[in-house]
Amino acid sequence: MASLRVITCDLAVAVVEPSTIVIQIMAARSAGRVLNERFDVATDGIREGDLHELTDPSGARVVTVVATSGLLSVSYRAEIDTRVPPSTEGLGPTLSPVTGTPSSDYLQQLYLRPSRYCPSDHIVGFAVAEFGIGRDVGARVAAITEWIRLRVGYVPGSSSVHDSAEDTLLTGVGTCRDFAHLGVALCRATGIPARFAAVYAPGLLPMDFHAVFEAFVDGRWCVHDATGLAPRSSLVRVVTGRDAADAAFVSVSRGIADLASLVVSATVGGDLPGDDGSMIVELP
Amino acid sequence: MASLRVITCDLAVAVVEPSTIVIQIMAARSAGRVLNERFDVATDGIREGDLHELTDPSGARVVTVVATSGLLSVSYRAEIDTRVPPSTEGLGPTLSPVTGTPSSDYLQQLYLRPSRYCPSDHIVGFAVAEFGIGRDVGARVAAITEWIRLRVGYVPGSSSVHDSAEDTLLTGVGTCRDFAHLGVALCRATGIPARFAAVYAPGLLPMDFHAVFEAFVDGRWCVHDATGLAPRSSLVRVVTGRDAADAAFVSVSRGIADLASLVVSATVGGDLPGDDGSMIVELP
Amino acid sequence: MASLRVITCDLAVAVVEPSTIVIQIMAARSAGRVLNERFDVATDGIREGDLHELTDPSGARVVTVVATSGLLSVSYRAEIDTRVPPSTEGLGPTLSPVTGTPSSDYLQQLYLRPSRYCPSDHIVGFAVAEFGIGRDVGARVAAITEWIRLRVGYVPGSSSVHDSAEDTLLTGVGTCRDFAHLGVALCRATGIPARFAAVYAPGLLPMDFHAVFEAFVDGRWCVHDATGLAPRSSLVRVVTGRDAADAAFVSVSRGIADLASLVVSATVGGDLPGDDGSMIVELP
Amino acid sequence: MASLRVITCDLAVAVVEPSTIVIQIMAARSAGRVLNERFDVATDGIREGDLHELTDPSGARVVTVVATSGLLSVSYRAEIDTRVPPSTEGLGPTLSPVTGTPSSDYLQQLYLRPSRYCPSDHIVGFAVAEFGIGRDVGARVAAITEWIRLRVGYVPGSSSVHDSAEDTLLTGVGTCRDFAHLGVALCRATGIPARFAAVYAPGLLPMDFHAVFEAFVDGRWCVHDATGLAPRSSLVRVVTGRDAADAAFVSVSRGIADLASLVVSATVGGDLPGDDGSMIVELP
Repeated sequence: MASLRVITCDLAVAVVEPSTIVIQIMAARSAGRVLNERFDVATDGIREGDLHELTDPSGARVVTVVATSGLLSVSYRAEIDTRVPPSTEGLGPTLSPVTGTPSSDYLQQLYLRPSRYCPSDHIVGFAVAEFGIGRDVGARVAAITEWIRLRVGYVPGSSSVHDSAEDTLLTGVGTCRDFAHLGVALCRATGIPARFAAVYAPGLLPMDFHAVFEAFVDGRWCVHDATGLAPRSSLVRVVTGRDAADAAFVSVSRGIADLASLVVSATVGGDLPGDDGSMIVELP
Repeated sequence: MASLRVITCDLAVAVVEPSTIVIQIMAARSAGRVLNERFDVATDGIREGDLHELTDPSGARVVTVVATSGLLSVSYRAEIDTRVPPSTEGLGPTLSPVTGTPSSDYLQQLYLRPSRYCPSDHIVGFAVAEFGIGRDVGARVAAITEWIRLRVGYVPGSSSVHDSAEDTLLTGVGTCRDFAHLGVALCRATGIPARFAAVYAPGLLPMDFHAVFEAFVDGRWCVHDATGLAPRSSLVRVVTGRDAADAAFVSVSRGIADLASLVVSATVGGDLPGDDGSMIVELP
Repeated sequence: MASLRVITCDLAVAVVEPSTIVIQIMAARSAGRVLNERFDVATDGIREGDLHELTDPSGARVVTVVATSGLLSVSYRAEIDTRVPPSTEGLGPTLSPVTGTPSSDYLQQLYLRPSRYCPSDHIVGFAVAEFGIGRDVGARVAAITEWIRLRVGYVPGSSSVHDSAEDTLLTGVGTCRDFAHLGVALCRATGIPARFAAVYAPGLLPMDFHAVFEAFVDGRWCVHDATGLAPRSSLVRVVTGRDAADAAFVSVSRGIADLASLVVSATVGGDLPGDDGSMIVELP
Repeated sequence: MASLRVITCDLAVAVVEPSTIVIQIMAARSAGRVLNERFDVATDGIREGDLHELTDPSGARVVTVVATSGLLSVSYRAEIDTRVPPSTEGLGPTLSPVTGTPSSDYLQQLYLRPSRYCPSDHIVGFAVAEFGIGRDVGARVAAITEWIRLRVGYVPGSSSVHDSAEDTLLTGVGTCRDFAHLGVALCRATGIPARFAAVYAPGLLPMDFHAVFEAFVDGRWCVHDATGLAPRSSLVRVVTGRDAADAAFVSVSRGIADLASLVVSATVGGDLPGDDGSMIVELP
């Protein structure tokens, strides 16, 4: 039963003028077999038909809605079974997948590069002095995660959407997104490929979308969460990328629209697993 | 004859301890049919055999060298014929291509996102006030390019590798990389997908690698260069990405090594074409 | 009657452990003759006696309170008559004034320098390209003020206490403090001495402390307010400095304490004067 | 003999159009009795007469030159005797001193404030987590100085004039100015008043102007130098301020002019004193 997760997301967007809205709230392709999926989109109660889905190179399912003015509501629900291989069907005939999967070599190069909210090139001096560049990368990732846990305060509302890992390091406050960015940036700055993952997090209180980071250690992408707010083994991956710039759950690529509401839920079948932070956990 | 370009790059890296070096200096897959290619790597004069080549999703050819200590020298020469379709062979049996090409829809989303040196999310206010968000995106890209041309001074040595498009906008000085970053950032901030391209540039004085930006207008990726230092129609693409973080010609992914020297050349068969900046130019 | 202003400020600070609190809420020495002044400080209702007042070089009255734990409440009320010369008495025998007034030459040098929230050195390129460095500095200050008025949106809650004039220029949003910082920074970057003033602002809605900037033009410090939210001629100066770093109405120099509440009022005798922004106004 | 220092500075400024140049290279008023002082200014070999000297509130001697176009050369030489009280005469009848000295209470407030290159407000989280806010401020200043010494590399050319203490903390490299800024910022962020001093530094190699920081500990301004490049007890103070924004040795307040050359020397009578960094040193 612990292999089953139920995730839901209901959100509304106030569309001021006809807009193109990009939505990343569905469980990633890799997260498991999807059962009983529902993804409804309506404007002022009238179902929107102009949807396109694509799967990005990381396996995230990206839905684009060409929306008319009004209150756009999106309702998503899915059950994910992690014991069986992922399914591949999408929302329907609009599916336009990206073909091909980047090679592991390429991903290791990609996720060493500095990015918008993880400017690792600028903090190499600090990171190497604090954490070294020795061969035991597993120990280094653990040390980075522990440093963030001890040094950064989790303070809702303390950071802005423009803040980078540098702001988090210096101000010592942030939320899950900032914790993940700092983990990514410190890993990359010491030579460890690292990436950002937006997830559903059963057990998170208050419930919301969550963010964690993954570091490449001994051939595996291991997930870390310096906030310690939810067990890692029951997380459900939504989107994976360089940082939050790749993982917005709603963005407006054309037109004018604003998020009006968001309700997220995530549960796991059976008891919530424990997580003392010391295990190696890979996220499907 | 104007369809033939000859490009060369000779560089040396001082490898302090055994290192993994990533090199992006070869013409991109899409640039044209490669004739008479040579790519030699040696350490202290002894040929290095441990090379791996991959083609990234943008078509860039990325060579990874596992290098021993010493002076690593890389010598590249190729002739590119742009009249005929690209060839697909690589350096040899070590070829490990990324399969698949991202869809155009995905690329449009990808290249709207803020990135390390093009933090477009933070300059939306300025960009929209200055350039608007109207439907004529071609005119807007032209206005952005002209604004940069008039407002930013090309001053070698004026910027640092950590500088972003914000620094360039505010200080009003930079080099080709900074000009390209500012073009990318202003386009994205006004809703136009834009990306960074590292290129060989016949006619550039003094000769060096060059950087330009491409904006997505009416279904095409059009190349722009606010520096006006070389004709766009004879540029040879090397690597394409979000910004310079994706386009380093040499980077060290493990170990300690420093660039020791770099000599670049690029010529075009026949006369150098003209470019008054007003044409629409697409880069293969 | 228009020469009389009545200003009040009631604030409370939650003092977590014995702290030294610095308060800058009194009308500056230069603002006019002070009538019927009241400045009461109590902790949990018991009057605090350990106050020190000093007058800083700009004429601001700075009160330091060595406070015990509890809720520190400060209640200030004064009537200011601007027709007659300022008075010089303070809160009592604890007065420890700074002697001497900086020369005008020195102030012109001082207020050309970049400061925490007005990093004018970094925006010289943009500022000079946009506004020039011609001899008509009055016209330039007017152009800067108008540019800010047209280009920056007044959006409560849009900025953070760490934001600088650069953030305001780029994001295009801010509050009075940000508008003033941008005015100061653009003036200095084009060679005009400029400074920040915290003021009481009769007519401001909603009522609060306000911030404006002063530029040195033709031998006078002329006040400007790109927000246009209150007439300049009835402002009451509190503190003058390089930027908001000099003008905090409450700061904690030792210990742990947080602002718990703040209520400000300011009225002018008779009708509120008009202000279309075009007059030269000097603030006493 | 160790009480005598001989300092010289010869600099040239290329004055492109008539300019106002501000020069801060003379020993501060407080540095000691000035003997045999010479301060010559000429344009293309013709003595400039339009000089004004003022003494700023910190005791720095500031000379303003209204210069015509040409090569402005400034030649300064002085002998300073630190055993006897300072002298008060200036360059001549153009002397226009700032009267008055700020009170110690005011200075403690002033030098707790964040400034252009020492944005202490933004690094409170990091600084308090690393160094605490305990009562033993002397130990904390020592810990901060030692941290900088161990963690920041002295690398000429590694930083830019726009860099702040944040850049130095993160990149881990800088020069004396950056070391001093970081010391100031970390002290202020943990509640210790701290300021920047530009000095002549006998023993410095290669010889140049030098920068150090002073922290207010137990009623005294104690000088610290994490670079360890010159003994503190023989430093000669030039200018004191919030950061380098207050301490430029040459700045252009009007017109267009660029530094063309700079040669500095500083020697001490007798042997250069030792300095293992552990003593409390106050700078006159």
